[in-house]
Amino acid sequence: VLARLAELLGPAKVSFASAERIAYSQDRFPLSLLWTRAGEVPYAPDAVCWPERIDDVRAVLALAAREGFPVVPYGGGSGVCGGTVPVRGGVVLDLKRMNRLLAVRDEALLCEVEAGALGQHLEEALNRRGYTSGHFPSSMYCSTVGGWLAARSAGQASTRYGKIEDLCAGLEIVLPGGEVAILKPVPRSAAGPDWRQLLIGSEGTLGVVTRAWLRIAPLPEARRFLSFRFPSVPSGLQAIRKVLRRGLRPAVVRLYDPLDTLVGVSGGLKGGGVLEAAKVELIERAKLEVLAHPEWAAIAGRFSSGCHSVFVCEGDRELSALEARAIEDAALAAGAEPRGEAPAEHWFRHRYDISYKGAPLFREGAFVDTMEVAAPWDRIETLYERVRAALAARAFTLAHFSHAYLDGCSIYFTFAALCPSERETRERYLECWRAGMEATLDAGGTISHHHGIGLLKADFMRREIGPFLDVFCALKRAIDPRGVLNPGKMGLP
Amino acid sequence: VLARLAELLGPAKVSFASAERIAYSQDRFPLSLLWTRAGEVPYAPDAVCWPERIDDVRAVLALAAREGFPVVPYGGGSGVCGGTVPVRGGVVLDLKRMNRLLAVRDEALLCEVEAGALGQHLEEALNRRGYTSGHFPSSMYCSTVGGWLAARSAGQASTRYGKIEDLCAGLEIVLPGGEVAILKPVPRSAAGPDWRQLLIGSEGTLGVVTRAWLRIAPLPEARRFLSFRFPSVPSGLQAIRKVLRRGLRPAVVRLYDPLDTLVGVSGGLKGGGVLEAAKVELIERAKLEVLAHPEWAAIAGRFSSGCHSVFVCEGDRELSALEARAIEDAALAAGAEPRGEAPAEHWFRHRYDISYKGAPLFREGAFVDTMEVAAPWDRIETLYERVRAALAARAFTLAHFSHAYLDGCSIYFTFAALCPSERETRERYLECWRAGMEATLDAGGTISHHHGIGLLKADFMRREIGPFLDVFCALKRAIDPRGVLNPGKMGLP
Repeated sequence: VLARLAELLGPAKVSFASAERIAYSQDRFPLSLLWTRAGEVPYAPDAVCWPERIDDVRAVLALAAREGFPVVPYGGGSGVCGGTVPVRGGVVLDLKRMNRLLAVRDEALLCEVEAGALGQHLEEALNRRGYTSGHFPSSMYCSTVGGWLAARSAGQASTRYGKIEDLCAGLEIVLPGGEVAILKPVPRSAAGPDWRQLLIGSEGTLGVVTRAWLRIAPLPEARRFLSFRFPSVPSGLQAIRKVLRRGLRPAVVRLYDPLDTLVGVSGGLKGGGVLEAAKVELIERAKLEVLAHPEWAAIAGRFSSGCHSVFVCEGDRELSALEARAIEDAALAAGAEPRGEAPAEHWFRHRYDISYKGAPLFREGAFVDTMEVAAPWDRIETLYERVRAALAARAFTLAHFSHAYLDGCSIYFTFAALCPSERETRERYLECWRAGMEATLDAGGTISHHHGIGLLKADFMRREIGPFLDVFCALKRAIDPRGVLNPGKMGLP
Repeated sequence: VLARLAELLGPAKVSFASAERIAYSQDRFPLSLLWTRAGEVPYAPDAVCWPERIDDVRAVLALAAREGFPVVPYGGGSGVCGGTVPVRGGVVLDLKRMNRLLAVRDEALLCEVEAGALGQHLEEALNRRGYTSGHFPSSMYCSTVGGWLAARSAGQASTRYGKIEDLCAGLEIVLPGGEVAILKPVPRSAAGPDWRQLLIGSEGTLGVVTRAWLRIAPLPEARRFLSFRFPSVPSGLQAIRKVLRRGLRPAVVRLYDPLDTLVGVSGGLKGGGVLEAAKVELIERAKLEVLAHPEWAAIAGRFSSGCHSVFVCEGDRELSALEARAIEDAALAAGAEPRGEAPAEHWFRHRYDISYKGAPLFREGAFVDTMEVAAPWDRIETLYERVRAALAARAFTLAHFSHAYLDGCSIYFTFAALCPSERETRERYLECWRAGMEATLDAGGTISHHHGIGLLKADFMRREIGPFLDVFCALKRAIDPRGVLNPGKMGLP
């Protein structure tokens, strides 16, 4: 059946070669890195396709609906939850050749872009026209617009610009049978449910996004950097809330917990700045000792000197000046010590480094992963304490608070461990997730702020959305009766 | 079967009386006012229920699923699209007894409120605690939280606070079979699609919202009023865009077209202010002559002296001062003439009056209605011209631009006509809608910004959302196989 693909699309758009099939057998899901380390390829696609236009996508989906083979939409492959792992084989549909920026609409502050465009390419093209996407995930160099939409991505400046679901004004989608649907870009609508918000975050299970209209912003005319050392997590959170309650939206808001602060500083940064990548380097340099002894973290925490923080305000000159003054006022009122602009500028320059630093640790036999959860402000400290308690005995765990909104924020846990055997490492890895997710749900948080669900968090969807998991399944069955689109993910069959 | 309702709920919560059945046979859908004027009751429920707790709602929905009778969720009855007209009879489920404000969460800026709470009651209760809902539809005194969510309502200050879909952080829903689902309040999530956004705007066809967590804001510490006369619609829109592009979000932004400006002024307002209710009064006073001759509007338009506008900035003192300065700069640069604070303050004091002024016109044999559409900025003037052209020959048509966002805004058309006979009036009414909706779709706009779909706009859903109407139908069939929840609306069976 799959041989028909080459006839349909032409040979340049299809491969059955094993090199390709192995390359597309995983994404940045840490568990799949453990598979690779062990030389295992538990799942692989039967073919990889690179559609170049929407008709190619339609042809593949129509054939799949007729013949019943799985189709896994694929972008940059930077997902960390196994969302693109082809657990039932079939076809991986890599959208990266559909990468054109089709229009920049100056008056409407909209761009129209194909789903396979890489983040950095889109941003550079917009910059040349005097605009910014406002969307800066740390995977910027290796993730696509389609991937952002599939997983409900967040950029580092989400407090100002919003997440991808806030930035998306319209979508073009190929539905499971091959039919094309356009949800045109409009600023707001009351014409029934917002179907965009059903597609966004559906991780390719309900349709293939081929084009998007994204909101853009004029390039900032000013940028202000601030950094403070807060005496504690609660004092830092209090200052952040105070700024947001005034209706101000600084672009970047990051507060590091004591251990994250300590690791950042010990990582070799002059001036007290925090370079996230340094955490991983430090961990490496310490010869992995610390990862084998997560209980040492409690001792290390005692040597920390408070909580580091980084703020970036950008946009209009007057508005960003007002934001910077508000941050300074709130920080000083909360007892923080100013650390100047340098650490924030340093963070800004190195803001994409972290995504490329995980691999050495894996080579050493350890694992490192991140858990990004969110909750309303009045649950956030409980969420922090509970997840930390759940992870602390099992892994070396750092955390920072970021992506702050009026009603709450997210917490980004980085956790790493090294066990005596590969089997134990895998067990520990899954244990961390089980304990962290249960703790999150117990605290009233959401199990993902911006990485999505994929394979990793599928088992926790029932507690997260309750009977809406049945609604999701019913909808999936209704529009994709043979279950061809990305099967086996998110708690769907 | 319906007699079982009284057993299930107790007699105080159910009525089969004809007075009640007639009272709940319509909402503020202008066509239904024409029915009333003619003494017709084309549709009436068989019973009206007033649940007092969620178990009452569950019992009714479980019985309905078993027996197959329609259930129409009902709030304040202020909808203008016939969304609650019980076209297949059955039970009207009035949620207004479930009206408690359950919690105000200071740190998280969230309130937890039952769906039957009236807007004004909620706002007053929040005000006493130092907060505001930020949601001020002109139906404030006669609409409920559940109604807002059902129809994707907008408040007059939506540019600052967002529409109800932006304000809703969580929902409690009773699904068609009677099962309860909670979508907990979280600031943002990547745990799959946003099911809240599927429920919001579904007008009671997919479930009954019984409780909501809404984002709130601290009561504004300052409020600034501004008013200008712009030389034209494009110059006014240009100034508004300029302010928004700076990242500023004044609470209220309203620009009246030349005819709306003229009618507002002629309506007897000293100082050039525009009192919307005056439009209707003027129309009345002109002995309905003008409504019988919509072509006069073109002549009247020539006597207009530009475009009136009203701005309100509120919130933080420094931020609202910056917003006010930005508005003034942009308005003057666009050639506007300042008209001081008074007209904006006047508008603010009378901002809810309009909802209570339509009835006299209906008594005289005419109709008046409003059409609220939206589009990206680079389509907005085309949308304005096309819809105006579509309506102008058929009705006396005014328009203002409001609910401005970074990527576009809405246009609110007010149109009224008087025909020689009742039959012709009804035909004219439906003709206006057909022509206006087609013109909107041709211009790339959305057929509703905040009133919803109901009966009125059901036929235009196919062009609005394309194949997603089939997805909507498939989902509806899957979770409500007997079609009990508000059947016959929105293009659903």
